[in-house]
Formats: sequence, C-alpha cells, structure tokens
Amino acid sequence: MDYLAEERKKAKFDVEAMKVVWAGSEHAFRINDRISRLVADDPEFSKDVRITLTRKDLLKNTLRKSAHAWKLINELRLTEEEATKLRLYIDQPGYTDLHWGMFIPAIKGQGTEEQQKKWLPLAYKMQIIGCYAQTELGHGSNVQGLETTATFDLLTDEFVIHSPTLTSSKWWPGGLGKVSTHAIVYARLISMGKDYGVNGFIVQLRSLDDHSPLPGITVGDIGTKFGNAAYNSMDNGVLQFDHVRIPRDQMLMRLSQITREGRVLASDVPKQLLYGTMVYVRKVIVLDASIALSRATCIATRYSTIRRQFGSQDGSPESQVIDYKTQQSRIFPLLASAYAFRFVGEWLNWLYGDVMQRLQAGDFSTLPEAHACTAGLKSVTTSATADGIEECRKLCGGHGYLCSSGLPELFAVYVPACTYEGDNVVLLLQVARFLMKTVSQLGSGKRPVGTISYMGKAEYLLQCTSDVHIAEDWLKPSFILQAFEARAMKMSVRCAQNISNSPSPEQGFSELSADLMEAAKAHCQLIIVSKFIDKVQQDTTNKSSVKEYLSVLCNIYALSTLQKHLGDFLSAGCITSEQGALANEQLRHLYTQVRPNAVALVDAFNYTDHFLGSALGRYDGNVYPTLYNEAWKDPLNDSDIPDGYEEYIKPLLKQSFKYSRM
Amino acid sequence: MDYLAEERKKAKFDVEAMKVVWAGSEHAFRINDRISRLVADDPEFSKDVRITLTRKDLLKNTLRKSAHAWKLINELRLTEEEATKLRLYIDQPGYTDLHWGMFIPAIKGQGTEEQQKKWLPLAYKMQIIGCYAQTELGHGSNVQGLETTATFDLLTDEFVIHSPTLTSSKWWPGGLGKVSTHAIVYARLISMGKDYGVNGFIVQLRSLDDHSPLPGITVGDIGTKFGNAAYNSMDNGVLQFDHVRIPRDQMLMRLSQITREGRVLASDVPKQLLYGTMVYVRKVIVLDASIALSRATCIATRYSTIRRQFGSQDGSPESQVIDYKTQQSRIFPLLASAYAFRFVGEWLNWLYGDVMQRLQAGDFSTLPEAHACTAGLKSVTTSATADGIEECRKLCGGHGYLCSSGLPELFAVYVPACTYEGDNVVLLLQVARFLMKTVSQLGSGKRPVGTISYMGKAEYLLQCTSDVHIAEDWLKPSFILQAFEARAMKMSVRCAQNISNSPSPEQGFSELSADLMEAAKAHCQLIIVSKFIDKVQQDTTNKSSVKEYLSVLCNIYALSTLQKHLGDFLSAGCITSEQGALANEQLRHLYTQVRPNAVALVDAFNYTDHFLGSALGRYDGNVYPTLYNEAWKDPLNDSDIPDGYEEYIKPLLKQSFKYSRM
Repeated sequence: MDYLAEERKKAKFDVEAMKVVWAGSEHAFRINDRISRLVADDPEFSKDVRITLTRKDLLKNTLRKSAHAWKLINELRLTEEEATKLRLYIDQPGYTDLHWGMFIPAIKGQGTEEQQKKWLPLAYKMQIIGCYAQTELGHGSNVQGLETTATFDLLTDEFVIHSPTLTSSKWWPGGLGKVSTHAIVYARLISMGKDYGVNGFIVQLRSLDDHSPLPGITVGDIGTKFGNAAYNSMDNGVLQFDHVRIPRDQMLMRLSQITREGRVLASDVPKQLLYGTMVYVRKVIVLDASIALSRATCIATRYSTIRRQFGSQDGSPESQVIDYKTQQSRIFPLLASAYAFRFVGEWLNWLYGDVMQRLQAGDFSTLPEAHACTAGLKSVTTSATADGIEECRKLCGGHGYLCSSGLPELFAVYVPACTYEGDNVVLLLQVARFLMKTVSQLGSGKRPVGTISYMGKAEYLLQCTSDVHIAEDWLKPSFILQAFEARAMKMSVRCAQNISNSPSPEQGFSELSADLMEAAKAHCQLIIVSKFIDKVQQDTTNKSSVKEYLSVLCNIYALSTLQKHLGDFLSAGCITSEQGALANEQLRHLYTQVRPNAVALVDAFNYTDHFLGSALGRYDGNVYPTLYNEAWKDPLNDSDIPDGYEEYIKPLLKQSFKYSRM
Repeated sequence: MDYLAEERKKAKFDVEAMKVVWAGSEHAFRINDRISRLVADDPEFSKDVRITLTRKDLLKNTLRKSAHAWKLINELRLTEEEATKLRLYIDQPGYTDLHWGMFIPAIKGQGTEEQQKKWLPLAYKMQIIGCYAQTELGHGSNVQGLETTATFDLLTDEFVIHSPTLTSSKWWPGGLGKVSTHAIVYARLISMGKDYGVNGFIVQLRSLDDHSPLPGITVGDIGTKFGNAAYNSMDNGVLQFDHVRIPRDQMLMRLSQITREGRVLASDVPKQLLYGTMVYVRKVIVLDASIALSRATCIATRYSTIRRQFGSQDGSPESQVIDYKTQQSRIFPLLASAYAFRFVGEWLNWLYGDVMQRLQAGDFSTLPEAHACTAGLKSVTTSATADGIEECRKLCGGHGYLCSSGLPELFAVYVPACTYEGDNVVLLLQVARFLMKTVSQLGSGKRPVGTISYMGKAEYLLQCTSDVHIAEDWLKPSFILQAFEARAMKMSVRCAQNISNSPSPEQGFSELSADLMEAAKAHCQLIIVSKFIDKVQQDTTNKSSVKEYLSVLCNIYALSTLQKHLGDFLSAGCITSEQGALANEQLRHLYTQVRPNAVALVDAFNYTDHFLGSALGRYDGNVYPTLYNEAWKDPLNDSDIPDGYEEYIKPLLKQSFKYSRM
C-alpha cells in the first residue's frame, strides 16, 4: 500500500524529467539508478544491525562489505565511475574511501612518473592498502606546523621518519588504525641540518605477510566517535614513528626532489598544479552536501505528510503537519538548498574542468578566484547541510531521535565535513582575504573575473537601491541578483574601509575577522543564487513545468536566505524594510506552490529505501508499522526481564536496602 | 601540572565569589560541591567504559548505578535536595529520573489524598517503580488526540484499559521498557458510552514477584537512540494493552471523579492547579539548559586556550586559538548565554513560588502570563542550548568529534529537551497566541502585568528611536532594554495588524505563524535580557569585580542577540544601521574584556572532571596525553590485527580475488 499515493497525484510537474535534472544527465541518472538498486537488493549490504554492533564487530562488518564490493567491482567489471557510486550507495565509511579518494590521488598528484609506475598498479589491485597521514594530535589546519620529521641519512641513502613529540603523533587519518598497509606520511624534510618544510613520503606500516605493524611503528585506533555507527565503521588512526627508515625514492618527488647527495631541488612542475586537486576534492564535498541534505529533506518531507497533529474537528483526522506554515517555513528552504547545492556543485564540475585545462596550458590567472570560490562554497554548503540535517531531525519530532529514523546517523556521519578538508571558519577567512585583495585592486584597472566579476560594478552596486514595489517583483531574477550583489559588495567594501582605519592591515583583518566571515558568506550565497538562476534559465527540458518548479525552488532559496540575513541587506541599504516584508510575503506564496509538489520534489532524488535507511522516510509511507517492528529488533528486547534484574532491581523492590529518608 | 595556571592568574575577579553567584547561594554552592565530589570520587559512578558498552550492558550499568545511588541516599541520609543533585551528577539518564520526576509528582498532583496515602509510600521506598505513559506512537503534542481507552465496566467496578490501534501504542515513556512495575497511563475515560476525554490511571505492568509483564500487557524497548551512550542508558518503552482490568480507584481522581454508578463528576479542585506543575517542570528545564550550555562552554573555553594554531613566527609557539576573534565571537556569546539562562531560571524559581502562593489563594490572574513566559523560555533556552553545544563541539575542531571530548554525548543527550515537555515550535505559538491576545486588549484599559507589562507602553515603544550615539552608549541598560522592548512590541503589533487583515483571525494566525514565532522569540529574549540586567543590579556581593564581569556578560548576551537578529531591530525601526554597527563595535571591546577572564568564568561553574567527562575540558588542561591514553582504551586496540583480517583483508592483499578493471 502506498500511503503517499494521494500526495504523488498532486504533483504538477513530471517527476521522471526532474529525476534527470537532479542527476545531471540521462547517463548519470541511469548509473545512479542501477547501482543504488544493485546495493539495495544485495543482502550483504544490509544496514539493519549496524547500530547495535560493538566497534569490533562494526569494523568487521565494514571489512566484509568492502571485500564484497571489491568482488562485485571485479566480477561485474564496473567502471571507475560505477565503482565510486557503489561505494557511495553502500553508505558506510570505510578504509576504501581513503585508499581510492586520497592515497591514490596523492601518488598521482605528487609522485613522479617512475613512482606512479611502481606504486599505482599495487594500489589499483589492492595488493597494498593506503591512507593519507597528514594531521597530527597537535596540528590540524596549519599544515606547515606539522612536527613529524623525515631526516635524510646520507650514509645509507635513506630517510629516517620520526615522531619527536606526543603532539606529533599522526591522528585522525581514516583507514590508518587497523587496515592500511601503507601511508602517505607528511613530514618535515630535513637534509644536511636544514628544514625544507613539509613533504609527502610513502611509508609501509604493516607487514604484507601477517599484517603486524613493522618495527618502530606504533599504530592504533583513536577511539569512538560521534554517533552509533556513523564514522565508527572507520578505523581513524594514531601513528608514531620511532626512527623508521625508508628508501630515498619513497619521498614523493614530483614537486621537490632530493639528490643522492642530499641536495633538495624544486622541480620545474609548477606548484599550482596541486590546487587542481583541492578544487576537485572540494567540488566533491559540495556535491556530497547536496546528497546529505536531500536525504534529510526527503525523510522529513515524506514523514511530515504522514504525521498528523492537532486541527481535528469532531473525530475527523488531524491535520498533516506539512500543512502547518511553521513546518513549511523550515523544510522548504532546506529542500530548495538541497537543489541549490546540487546545481552549484554541478557548476563546480565545469569549473574544475576549466581550471585543469588552463593549468595544463600554463594559465594560472583564474586560479585565485577558483580557489576562493571552492573554499567558500565548501564552507557555506557543509555548514548549512549539517544544520539542515539536524533541523530535519527536529522537524520529525520525537521519532526523529530514534536511530530507526535514519537522521541521527545521517547527522553524525555528516558533521565532520564542516571540519575536514579545511575548517569552515579558516576557509571563509581565506575567501575574505581574496575579497579584500580584490577590493583593494578595484581602482587599478584590473578587471575582476568569474564569480567576482560583479565587483567590477562596484560604483553602481554601492549606491543602487532596489526597485521592488510589489511582492511579485521578488520573482524577477534581476531584482534578486542585484540585491545579493549589492549586499555582498557593500559588506566587503565596509570591511575594507574598517581595515584601512586600523593601525595595520593585519591587525585590522584579525580584529574584524568575524565581520569578514559574514562578508565571505554573503559572497558565497551570491554565487549559489546566481548559479541556480543560470541553471533555471539554461534548463532545456521541454517539460516547462519542471522549469517552473526549479524556478520556485530558486526563488525560495534566494528569498529565505535574504530573510535569514535581513540585517545584512538592510544595513547595506540595498533594500528597505518594506521590501524585506514583501520578500517575506512572496515567500509564503512560494511555500503554497511547493506544498502539493513536495513529495514529488523529494521523489526526484530517486533514493532507495536502503540508501535512506529511515522508517520515517520510506517510499511507501508505511511509517508506524515499520517503527514498531524496528523497535522489537533491539537486543534489549531479547528477553522480557533485563540483565541486571536480579542484582539491581529485585533488591530495591524487595526492600533489601534500608531506607531512611521518609 | 596545571597547564591553565597562567590563564587563571589573569582573572580580574574573585572566582570563589562568582562560584556562589552561579550556584545561587552559599547553601546551593556547598551542596553542589559536596555531592559532585562524592560522585566523582566513587568508582561505582565511573563513566569510563560507558560508550563502548552494548545496549544490554549499558542498561545494566544504569541499573547498577541507580541501585548504588539508592544505597548512598539511604546510608548517608541524604535530603531530597541532595538526592536530586546526586542523580544530576551521576549524569546518566535512567528510570529513576522518571520515577522521581514524573511518576511521583503525577500522583501528588492528580491523586486524591487517599490515593496519595496508598501509593506514595510504596513509591518513596521504591517498592514499586513507576513511569509516565502519555505519548503514543501516533500522538505527541496533542494530548487530547490520544487513542488509548479506559472504559468503565459497571458490572465489575473496573476500568478496561485497551490499545485499539497500532498508533495508540504508548511510545517513548522513559523507564517503561524494562524497569517500571507501574505506570501513570493517560487514556480516554469512557463511561456509559460517553467519552470524557483524557485522564490519568495507575496501572501495574509487571509482576512484583518475578518482574514478568502481566497478562494483557505487551511491553518493550523502542530501540537505539541518537548518540553512543546518551539516552541509550534509558529504557524508553512501547506498551500495548489488551483489555487490561484495573480497579476503579486507580483512576487519578483529584480533578475528575467517577462514581460506582459510572457517573463522571468534576471535583471542586480548580484545573488551574495543574499549571503549577507545568511551571515547575519548565523551570527545571531552563535551569538544565544553563547546566548543559555551561558544560559545553567550559570544555570549549579551556581547550581553546590549550590549542594553538597558526601565527607562529620563527619557531615560537603558535597562537592560542582563543585569541582569534572568530573564536571569541562564537564562544563568548554562548558563555554569556549560559549565565543568562542560569539567572532567568533562578527568576523562574521565584515565579513558581509566586504562582503557587496565588493558586493556593485562588488568584489565577497571573497564570496566563506565567504560563506563556515559562513555555517561551523553555523553548528559547533549549533551542539555543542544543545549537550552542554543537557550536562548542565545532569550536574544538576535529577532536570535538571524538567521544573522549565529551561533546558528542552532551549534544545527543541534550537535544531531546527541544522536543519533550512541549515541542519548541508548538510552545512558541502558544506564547504568540498570548501576545496577540494581549495586543488586542491594549485599548481595553486592562493593564498588562509581569513580563508583559512593557506592552503598557505600546504607544511610546511603537514610535521611539534609540538615543545611542557612541559605542559606549550600548553599555547602558536603559538603552538596551528600550531597544529590546521596542523590537518585541513592534513585531507583535505588526503580526496583529497582519492578522486583522486576514479573512479570519484563525486563518491569519495560521498563515503568519512563522512570523509569530519570531515575535514570540523576541518577547522571550527581552525577558532574558531584563532578568539578567536585574540580576546585575541586585547583586549584593561586595566584590565589585564580580558585578563588573556579570555586567560584561549581560551586555554580551544582549548585544550578540541584537547582532544575530539585526534584521528584526532594523525592520522595526527601533535602531538605525549605524547604531547596529556601534553595537557590533562595542561587542568586540567586550570580547577583549572577557578574554583574560574566560577560564575563570568557566571555573566558576565549579564542575568536576567527572561531570565534564572531557579530555579537552580537564581542569588541569592536560589535553593531549589524556586524548592519547583514552584512544588506547578502545576495544579495537585490544589486538594489533583486527577481527576479520583473515577473511576480508588478507584475500585482497594476496589477490585471491580476480580483478579486471585495470
């Protein structure tokens, strides 16, 4: 029985067409569809008991799934794209994420051709398993502060890898604790007494015969993390070196080389090439944000149509909670954000290709802009997604707190994205630095390019006011864009002015860093809004209704962002408080338009029940029997009488304790 | 070694005096201090292995601690106040929370004297263990929608308790699943075919001989919840009745009675008395919010002074992260909020006493105001605390994601407070309804009282503008109060006007409910600010420095709230954007004043390391060795080679799988 059938009938657009728009292409849709069903239908990938396992059993469960995945990848001759999707839909963090996502790319990016020829085939065949050992117990964002040393020994032509302090212990690398046989270790390159800064080294950690740690290597897991299963299926590790020796040719030498005589030379490969990898990784993170947020909104939306509360007259059913404006004003902006992040991620795909082409051609001119833009989008989308998942959990009321809702796990497994690959605050400050530089060069005749090109209109934007007169005006992309551009421009310029009034630029930047973060956010939100507008305008599906609802979502994203940051827009003087009130009014109309399409808009994500992993978000809406049945599976329900009854309950009830209070 | 000693030397106020201010009195300080140390020093209450236990073992662990606590309570002849503190500092949710906090109070509040005489002694001695079975699988906030029936059987003088549907299964009650022998069950009272609505009944669930569920009773645990240990130490339960019979006198009859003939009569006890309990419970929740938020800020503040990152020149140590303005602008408002919630909770203590006195005297006039005020404060403080704990976790970077930081557990165990005892959205709408009613009566000559008395100045507040000229003006309580009053007034009046333009008041209220929530928040934040200002002004400690820093915290709470909701203040026209910028400037000065006192301000909470349960928040600041040692305790580190190596890793490395991709 399909409890959501009535809801689905209400949809005013073609869901199948929207599925393709969401996936990005027919090809992508087909692969997602096929691989996600392959995983869902394979009992080996069941997620059922996961949250009840001890950590040892949970890791073993991950090892089993990874081995099974590898078997499938080979038997079914999956392409690399398909294999990546397979790992996505298995939906359980594990060592292979780092092996394929960090270890191999690091060798590709930083290894010489010779090194690649030696190591990549072993890694591709999984004859070795690798991880990426950068962060240390005492050192995270500041890579240049790492303490691990790699000292060249001229006598033996080897490096001595060493952990000089407790805080230099490698700490956090995924797959390090129990599984990896090798690691890319980042350490200070020291030769002839000189410190050349941090470089990567390939270090074997465990015997390939019996998996025991090699001499001089102390390696283990760093302990339980947030959530029940979540990232506890991953062996994030600690690693210490006691004068471990590796051959000279295990230093990754694409960018810097060291000779037999211990001389360190820069290669002729430009360092900027490394930024390509950074753009790549952050693009993936933005797309992952859209996946995580869409999962959460899918669960919250479906459940909100099933759940009823209040509003009953004379025994008629209570109201569906999704009909409450308070619920709509919280869910629909998140639904719109999921779409917004999806499309800006797609655009980053294009940007990555563009950057790589230019890099190959030796054109580094767009790199600072691309770098700032990906850093900022990573920060803004992951923060909004983490908050959004938790908001969706709260929107499901008490039942959202049960693991069977899927939301606690989704939150716990997602939040590290705010910290890894660049802490979100640090990243926003990088964006702010770029914005301040751009503002300072505005008079110089240098034309801002790409996402920053609006700054070329600084003079206009700083004095313009909005022409919005009626609520419907806020549906016009040009009005939205101008308001977002004017706000971002004004915030950057105001920061720049305040900095210039400081004793020194550095002091000013530091003193005003909280304001700078807000300016950076404003810039990033402008990018997201403008790419969403582009997407709507470019949409070539002939199903006009799809375009219509994309446009509704785009407007919701823009106007709810405006509403949330109303103080910015008003302070900047780019809109009046009356215009703010009109935006708010328009937003309510937009929610009304989304309401009958809400279930269809989350159906368009095409997620399997396996991937959602939620009793509340099931496709068929059969919520209550599922919650009920899930409950009885808890090991606590194996017996009526709990362990400990004889020792700790019975003596109370039988008054074997004396009491004296009454 | 005390790594925080240098920080402690910087403090410019008397920490011991502040400890008393935080605790509320010398008496409260001494009890907290004594009981928290008693718990911390008792190995039975160790929290060490908690997060690694299976659910069965975790429940057993709770049972053991509860039995031990009961032993101590009796042996040490603890007072009720001390016993409550003991349960607080044990810091592990368990069935006794509900037995003492809900079961017993329900009998006291809703039972007749006779019923109290029969049941309370059994409960006080723990010869029976009770829980509070109200919510159902399909029914939460709307108590009047409960489906469980209690049908009076005239023949046998009994009630037949029955669960007519799956959705009528009792769902969530803490202590129900495995421990409770009895429950207060809320069910529809049906007599002679007539439905009299929901009433409470005392129902025995399990045999007092062998703890097995009684005939007709299906009872179990509802499964794993958010977090590793967190609320999984509690047996939240599911309960179904198949025509279970109880004697007529087990209906709680203080408010309604049923005669032997099945006639239902209202007693002469006014229903309003029940609201007293509600005010009591919500007051406790507000105080709990201040405890949870202060724990989180204590951990984040101490760790931020230990953690160093960037800013190193030539090998000197990196900067303490607490010196970054971005860190300060996120931690210090939360620290100020913890103090703000503490003091508003203290004021609610007074309000509760006042309400009870009036109720006894038959004066119900202040009840609607007191009810709205406690509902709103419960909502605003718990939402801010849940978000604040997660913010503190993020402020601790990657290490905040480890359970050994204490923050994941603190978050997971805290967040249900946003949902239980009134969903935060539903509560804000109740406040909004009260505000709309008050506004509509403004012309009637009825003087608004208590926290709503500012509305008596409506005419003035709706047209006043702020006299702030320089940043320091924002330190004046009168300027702050006026801005908050004007904003709250304007938002309420604007909502009321918009509602009056709607086809009907109900439709208008529903359509505008998102705006109404914001108006309710503004009202509640005004209460918090004004009670903080009162507290500072009333503070009679002769140590003026304490008063000085309370005043700094009060200003930070007010101005950071203003900054966060700047759009409200600007739209309402009660401040200009220049005045907003001055508030921002003043806030930065205030952060600078807090910085050297930050560690002392969290020391004033007087929390033991046991209660904090955090490697990052330790009193001695010995963070890194603790994190390191905690890691090795994980069961995964029992062996170098993980379970599953032979089956799932070795075959990969040894290429027992064929591969075909390369």
